[in-house]
Order: sequence, then structure tokens, then C-alpha cells
Amino acid sequence: MTDPAADEKPVVILIAPQLGENIGMVARAMLNCGLTELRLVRPRDGWPSEKARETSAGALEVIDGAQVFETTRDALADLTRVYATTARPREMVTRVLTPAAAAREMRAEASGGGGKAGVLFGGERSGLDNEDISLADTIITAPLNPGFTSLNLAQAVLMLAYEWWIAGDETPAERLETNLSEVATKESLDNFLIRLEEQLDEGGFFRSAPMKPTVMRNIRSLFQRARPTEQEISTLHGIIVAIRRAERNAPRYDRRRREES
Amino acid sequence: MTDPAADEKPVVILIAPQLGENIGMVARAMLNCGLTELRLVRPRDGWPSEKARETSAGALEVIDGAQVFETTRDALADLTRVYATTARPREMVTRVLTPAAAAREMRAEASGGGGKAGVLFGGERSGLDNEDISLADTIITAPLNPGFTSLNLAQAVLMLAYEWWIAGDETPAERLETNLSEVATKESLDNFLIRLEEQLDEGGFFRSAPMKPTVMRNIRSLFQRARPTEQEISTLHGIIVAIRRAERNAPRYDRRRREES
Repeated sequence: MTDPAADEKPVVILIAPQLGENIGMVARAMLNCGLTELRLVRPRDGWPSEKARETSAGALEVIDGAQVFETTRDALADLTRVYATTARPREMVTRVLTPAAAAREMRAEASGGGGKAGVLFGGERSGLDNEDISLADTIITAPLNPGFTSLNLAQAVLMLAYEWWIAGDETPAERLETNLSEVATKESLDNFLIRLEEQLDEGGFFRSAPMKPTVMRNIRSLFQRARPTEQEISTLHGIIVAIRRAERNAPRYDRRRREES
Repeated sequence: MTDPAADEKPVVILIAPQLGENIGMVARAMLNCGLTELRLVRPRDGWPSEKARETSAGALEVIDGAQVFETTRDALADLTRVYATTARPREMVTRVLTPAAAAREMRAEASGGGGKAGVLFGGERSGLDNEDISLADTIITAPLNPGFTSLNLAQAVLMLAYEWWIAGDETPAERLETNLSEVATKESLDNFLIRLEEQLDEGGFFRSAPMKPTVMRNIRSLFQRARPTEQEISTLHGIIVAIRRAERNAPRYDRRRREES
């Protein structure tokens, strides 16, 4: 993903946050997801905050760049689109989006040159009041366990920031970490399976000749499912060699005992 | 969404967590997303923990039901599928999923009656070690800001739990909260616009007759975009009445002054 320009990223606006620790954790969650612009409206314990710096775990570009405002209106003045986060339904007629839908909308608007967005988060105690919510164009409500919707402030910010981040992310949903080795070709896999089959024939593994193709298909399936790398195929060959060597090195009496059993 | 049965939900397993506060915040994040089964392997500060109860914000069913294990192997013994969360690439050949993809996989397997899944999270200081990771079938790595991937423990749990929750959630991405009033029908909107147009005609609003249809289309678009409810249409009618009444009630001299200007 190419990191969007700063003015294409939503601003996080905390209304009357209480604890510096929480502001620090918000900053950390923001930077985890590439967000950098933090605004604080009437932080209860003042600003700057040493505790916020500590709990930010090094997200100092967010902490040191934070701006403080006296009113929500002032904090929003330069924005063109404002979202308010709340878990509770309000007595207003309003658009309600999930975090994922809001994130897609912010991405789409920003890439269309559509101005600057911000997201309001209420304080730890009681969230946003209706006056602040009425300044927002749209409400964001995360679909949570209806029996337990009380979200920690930094968790609420993370949820939104993470959705914003992945809305522009192109990481494949699934990949195989191969640690620089290549995934084995079918030819390599076949060569190993042919060798294994010879060994199994030699060792009297196949009790029923007609079942042999089925048994081999099942064995193939097991190894194939593991998607071995070329290096792992070498390891499998090595395992065959080692098992034979173990037998060769075994003391005579031991070998005989096994034959009798 | 119907809440899945307990044995269809993934278990959260914290390996050597340090602070009780963080375990409490993990429990809170889990319950926010409907997860209830927590397992702790060698919690540094012992268990039970009063601090964990405090920071769980009431997620006591998770805290009180938490089980403690001496080894990771013991904590995994009854599971059929294990995921390990880590931000760093490891020297292993392994499947790597995003949190969203892992969540979909867990949902799909559980609904197919495919056993019980668990997710390993490492301690605050250094995450999971390679030995613990090797016990997992699959790695989960969240695509984060590559310049700042250090996630708080409860944040990591939330990210996964939230993806699991919404993978089974049917909340519409967008809805209009109408506070019990119905969204207005087109007929209601038309009736209002006809009345408004009459008022505007009467007030000499349309300077150019040929432009009138365009102007009215733009006005319609503005009101239509707002998706007013029936109640709001009533309010709009009331606004017209009120503006006329304001004029009617205005003192004579005031009215004359405006006419002159």
C-alpha cells in the first residue's frame, strides 16, 4: 500500500478525554494504522501529558503534533466531513454506518479530492453528548455484542483506524511464508512420492495390491496439503535415508526381537 | 446475528501475560465481540487478579471463567485448530492469514462442525516464542503500518475478536436511524416541493423563467439527499408557515425598511 498523503487521512478528535494514559494509547493505536493527526477538545488533565507520552509506546509524532481546542466547533472548522462514534441510538434522524463502511467512504472521498474528514470520539465516562453528535454528518456504530458494548476509548479508535487502514491495504488474505525457499514443484513432489512408494513396496507396506493406488493418493494428499517447499522435500528425502540408516545401525539382537514381534 | 454456541467460538489463549490490567482489558475486548473463553499460560503476576477484574469493566464472566495452564501444550490439548498471532516473520514455513481471513476460516470451520479453534497471543514484552508458534497450524499477522507495528495486547485481541464477530454479523453497512418516524414517501416530498415552489413564485424568487426547472431540480436534489422523514417534511411545512408569520408580525417600519433596501 502506498501511504496516503496526510491530508487524505482522517483526523481523530477526542472530546473531553480524561486520562493521559488513554490519550497515549489512542496515539499508539492511530500510528499502528498509519493515522497521525490528533486533536483534543478540553483534555481534563491538561496538555502536554507525560503519561500520554509513556503509554504511546513511541508514537511521539502523534503526541507531539496533537492540537488542543476549546470547543468541538473549533476542532472541526476546517473539515468537510465529520463522523461521530457512538454505541447508543440517539434521538436524531441520522445516517448510521459500520466502521468498515465509514472507512471505505473516507477512502473514496479522499481519493476523489473531496476534502478532509474527521472522527469524533467521546470521553471515557459518557461518550459524546447530543450537541457534539449533531455537528457530525454521519454516525459510526460498531456492531458489537449487544450485551456488552462498553468499549475502551483506545479500542474504539483502533477499531475505526484499523478499518481505515485495511480499506486501503492490499495484503493478500492468505499467503505462505516460505522463509526464502520456493514452494516445491509438482515434479519434486512426484519424485519424492515415487521414492517413498518404492520404500513402502520394499517394506511390505501395501497389504492389498488393489488398494495401493488409493493409499498412495491419500498419502499424496497429506503431503500436498502441507504445500512443502523444495527445501522441505530435501528434508523428506533425508528422513527416508535416516530411517534406513537407523535400521542398519541397530544392534543385531534388537533387530531380531522386532522381527519376532 | 444469532450468537454461536460456546464451542463454536474461538478460545483466546494468553501466553505468559504480565500485567493483570492487560488481562482485564483483554477480557473486556473479548466480551465486546462475544468471546467468552479465556485461557492463561503462566500469568506472571498470578491468578486470580483483582486488577484484571477492575479493568475488565464488568466482563466478569470472562475473568471468572478463565483457566490457568502450566504449558502451552496443555492449554491447546483439546483444540483442533490453533492460530498464533505475530507481527514478525519467523524462520518457519507457514501459512499466514490476515485477521479477517482467519476469522472467516474459524466461522466456516465451526459451522461445518469442525472442532474447536484457539488463538495464541504472546506476552507484552516479546510476543510468542518460536516454540509456541510451532504448535500453531497457522499464523495471523495484521497488516499494520510497517513503521509502527507494536500493538498493545488488548488491541491485538480486539482486532481478532472484532473480525470474528463481524464475520458473522449481518448489520447493514449503512442504515438511516429515523427515530421511529418513517422516511418520507416521494409523494410527501413532492407535496412539500410544490408548496415551496408556489411560495418562491409568490416571493419573486425565480428571476429567469427558463431557468426555473433547473433551479427547482437543484432544490429537490438538496432535500432529497437529506432523505427526510415524514415528520421532518411536516417540520419543513411548518418552517414555511413560520417564515410567513414572522413577516406578518413584523412592525410596519421594519417591513418598509426592508422593502427599500
